[in-house]
Amino acid sequence: MATQTLASHIATQPEWQDRLYKQVALRIAELIEHGTLRPGERIPSVRELSEREEVSIATVMQAYRVLESRGLIEARPQSGYYVRAKLWSPPPEPSKSQPTRSATRVSVNELVMEVLKATHSPALVGFGAAMPSPQLLPTLQLHRTMASVARRHSSLCNSCDIPPGNLNLRTQIARRAMESGCTLSPDEIVTTCGCQEALNLCLRAVAKPGDTIAIESPTYYGILQIIEALGMKACEIPTFPREGVCLDELAKRLKWCRIKACVFSLNFSNPLGSCMPDIKKAQLVKLLADREIPLIEDDLYGNLSHSPHRPKTAKAFDKYGLVLLCDSFTKTLAPGSRVGWTAPGRFRTQVEHLKFISSVGTPTLPQLAIAEFLANGGYDHHLRKLRRFYAEQVPRVTQAITKYFPAGTKVTRPTGGYVLWVELPPQVNSLELFRRALAEKISIAPGPIFSAKQKLQNFIRLSCGAPWSEAMDRALLKLGQLSSMMM
Amino acid sequence: MATQTLASHIATQPEWQDRLYKQVALRIAELIEHGTLRPGERIPSVRELSEREEVSIATVMQAYRVLESRGLIEARPQSGYYVRAKLWSPPPEPSKSQPTRSATRVSVNELVMEVLKATHSPALVGFGAAMPSPQLLPTLQLHRTMASVARRHSSLCNSCDIPPGNLNLRTQIARRAMESGCTLSPDEIVTTCGCQEALNLCLRAVAKPGDTIAIESPTYYGILQIIEALGMKACEIPTFPREGVCLDELAKRLKWCRIKACVFSLNFSNPLGSCMPDIKKAQLVKLLADREIPLIEDDLYGNLSHSPHRPKTAKAFDKYGLVLLCDSFTKTLAPGSRVGWTAPGRFRTQVEHLKFISSVGTPTLPQLAIAEFLANGGYDHHLRKLRRFYAEQVPRVTQAITKYFPAGTKVTRPTGGYVLWVELPPQVNSLELFRRALAEKISIAPGPIFSAKQKLQNFIRLSCGAPWSEAMDRALLKLGQLSSMMM
Repeated sequence: MATQTLASHIATQPEWQDRLYKQVALRIAELIEHGTLRPGERIPSVRELSEREEVSIATVMQAYRVLESRGLIEARPQSGYYVRAKLWSPPPEPSKSQPTRSATRVSVNELVMEVLKATHSPALVGFGAAMPSPQLLPTLQLHRTMASVARRHSSLCNSCDIPPGNLNLRTQIARRAMESGCTLSPDEIVTTCGCQEALNLCLRAVAKPGDTIAIESPTYYGILQIIEALGMKACEIPTFPREGVCLDELAKRLKWCRIKACVFSLNFSNPLGSCMPDIKKAQLVKLLADREIPLIEDDLYGNLSHSPHRPKTAKAFDKYGLVLLCDSFTKTLAPGSRVGWTAPGRFRTQVEHLKFISSVGTPTLPQLAIAEFLANGGYDHHLRKLRRFYAEQVPRVTQAITKYFPAGTKVTRPTGGYVLWVELPPQVNSLELFRRALAEKISIAPGPIFSAKQKLQNFIRLSCGAPWSEAMDRALLKLGQLSSMMM
Repeated sequence: MATQTLASHIATQPEWQDRLYKQVALRIAELIEHGTLRPGERIPSVRELSEREEVSIATVMQAYRVLESRGLIEARPQSGYYVRAKLWSPPPEPSKSQPTRSATRVSVNELVMEVLKATHSPALVGFGAAMPSPQLLPTLQLHRTMASVARRHSSLCNSCDIPPGNLNLRTQIARRAMESGCTLSPDEIVTTCGCQEALNLCLRAVAKPGDTIAIESPTYYGILQIIEALGMKACEIPTFPREGVCLDELAKRLKWCRIKACVFSLNFSNPLGSCMPDIKKAQLVKLLADREIPLIEDDLYGNLSHSPHRPKTAKAFDKYGLVLLCDSFTKTLAPGSRVGWTAPGRFRTQVEHLKFISSVGTPTLPQLAIAEFLANGGYDHHLRKLRRFYAEQVPRVTQAITKYFPAGTKVTRPTGGYVLWVELPPQVNSLELFRRALAEKISIAPGPIFSAKQKLQNFIRLSCGAPWSEAMDRALLKLGQLSSMMM
């Protein structure tokens, strides 16, 4: 039963379709399912299978990593891979969200800031903030590049770079955008102080105070805060935990409400981890273009696919200049530098002006250093490592949740990023859980901060951005106990 | 006549009152005025005068620098100081500005951006952008400090610093604020992405779209752009070129208009260079406090006094938490880092929240590096050098204007900062002059970008931020010729 779930889960991963390693993984999953390979038994070595199936070593390695991260097999040092003695069955997933239908004023800022201030302490076991652990980032290399750039371009690095921002970096960004299916020229890109500034600028470029903005439900609290601070309204759209925004429901809301713009995170959204299939992205772009509605696409986690290839962006399907793509290097490389960017389509001039008005320019030195880091190829290698890490880390945390949390707990199965969205039994109040966890020196992100009107009371987001540790295991056990005590 | 003007000008400089070196300078100015020392004659050496007047060498040096920068004496290498053969008389100053009385929507953004884009080229002789030349800044030292900080605090520098920002830097800022008469604790300070972000956050914290904001006339175009982008209205207050905002007129406007907040630059304002006497600052703070009106104080140029001591800020007189002081290190140390700060008084929580919403945090590495630079004392030495440089450079450019520009030209006499506000004869259209100058590869800032409704057609701002050169002299000659041709 468990294997069936997993095999079919693997089979339906949209981003794995037609990938060789997935076929190999499926073959092994089926052998386990049919009892050909039994719990505790050794499975063929990587070399054996590579020769037998006539595929590369790398493909088999990738297949085994997928099987391992899904709990079907385990590696034993110096010995090879074995079918897990006790097969692990992932918990059920939350259903499609059901927010209220009408547009609403947002009031979440005070709560978000209270949670953030409490969460931002290094003394906590941190599942609260969705920040990558500095240990996982090539910090030393980046700083070395920065020092070298500062030596070579001393005056340039100490002068102001007005919008659209540093050309070297914009060129690198445009090159890399090809991977997500976009054809961008450096001129179409504006660099910013992180993705958050990009989202602010784009929203101000397309909408005014009082306008209604369509968002996912749940959505990243930072977006809710921007909408609230700008005096706009939110229209929360029902969203599937796997495939993202429900297009049928969106189409209905477009008829009912006067929606001025959408802000969606289509690839590994925060907190759901949903990834909209590329074919649906094309439909979404068309649906909005027919009504001339701009789509602000937050692709902050797009590079953190758990498989070796990243999904496309909606921007890849945009023929109308209506998609404003926003991204940054905060989650993958340089959280401390806060360098982000946007490709705002036909709103480029407005965004450039707003960027100047908001903060004049983006610091030059980190832009140059990141550009050099991207150009020298270190970034790809690093991204591959990061993807593999999260591909293993996310199921590991899921497993601990399955073990420790009360029956009835549901968990998302993200195929990218590093956050899990956990639905607790309805009796558990996540704000109360947040407070009790904090008293135990554990941070979590309570559901209400991801909702315009502080709903989603029995949900929490757990970030798996830090390397696994005993302390983390104990903290998850404690969280499970605290949840059970509240039922 | 010329000496009389200069002697009395020196005598009335408010920030020089009761300073020993000023008395020494005055004594020499009077000797020249009365003919005791005649054009071309050698004046007493520094050592002679130091012994005769029983003051330190440094005091005499300072006095001679003042006299030199005002055009009374000149240094001859290996020989000493001489009374200038041809005494230079500074041109008349512009009068108090006379903006319209009513609050008005601002529409200046498009023009500002057009001017800025055209101006931002290294191929131009640049009087347009008010940026310090990187040559004048301790860039190498700063970058060395940055590399060292990055080595020592590797992980910290690559993680995100949420508001209020880095404690080391806030501590240093609080310490330095004593110089401007402020008693601030690090907790009262929020670091930002430059002064421009600080101004944005403060304005959003105290006012809403539709509200009316009182500003100086002329005022820095960045403030006009913020007001325009936020959908607020501007009420331009008549302003004296020497003493800043006219308090009587402000008091009247406070009765007529529903003013929600003021944004003033009281120390060496941009573009006027005006410096409000401290006693008037106290009156201003009281006037606004009586009506519970917040004052956003832009002190960006406050450290660039041409005399050794800087004036106080209005914040120094604020007992009510109603002054939101904004500043940055952009003009004095690190234009490329874009690190600024605000001490927003009773609006601290709102500003912190808005900072998080706008850009999450300020990059950590430049904050730490600047903090270390401030702590190690290099900053004071550097500031002294910078002040002396501008104290000499500003009169030098003024002299060239006197020589080359058409009769009837008026120029401000700033006692700090490095911008000059030039009133051309009424026939000269400064936008046309801007375009013709650009064709000659010279950049200037035309008057209309400093006015809510693009008035001030016959004014220009000239920035003297770069070291003097032959090219600069030729460019000023050309600007004078272009102006004359338009009469």
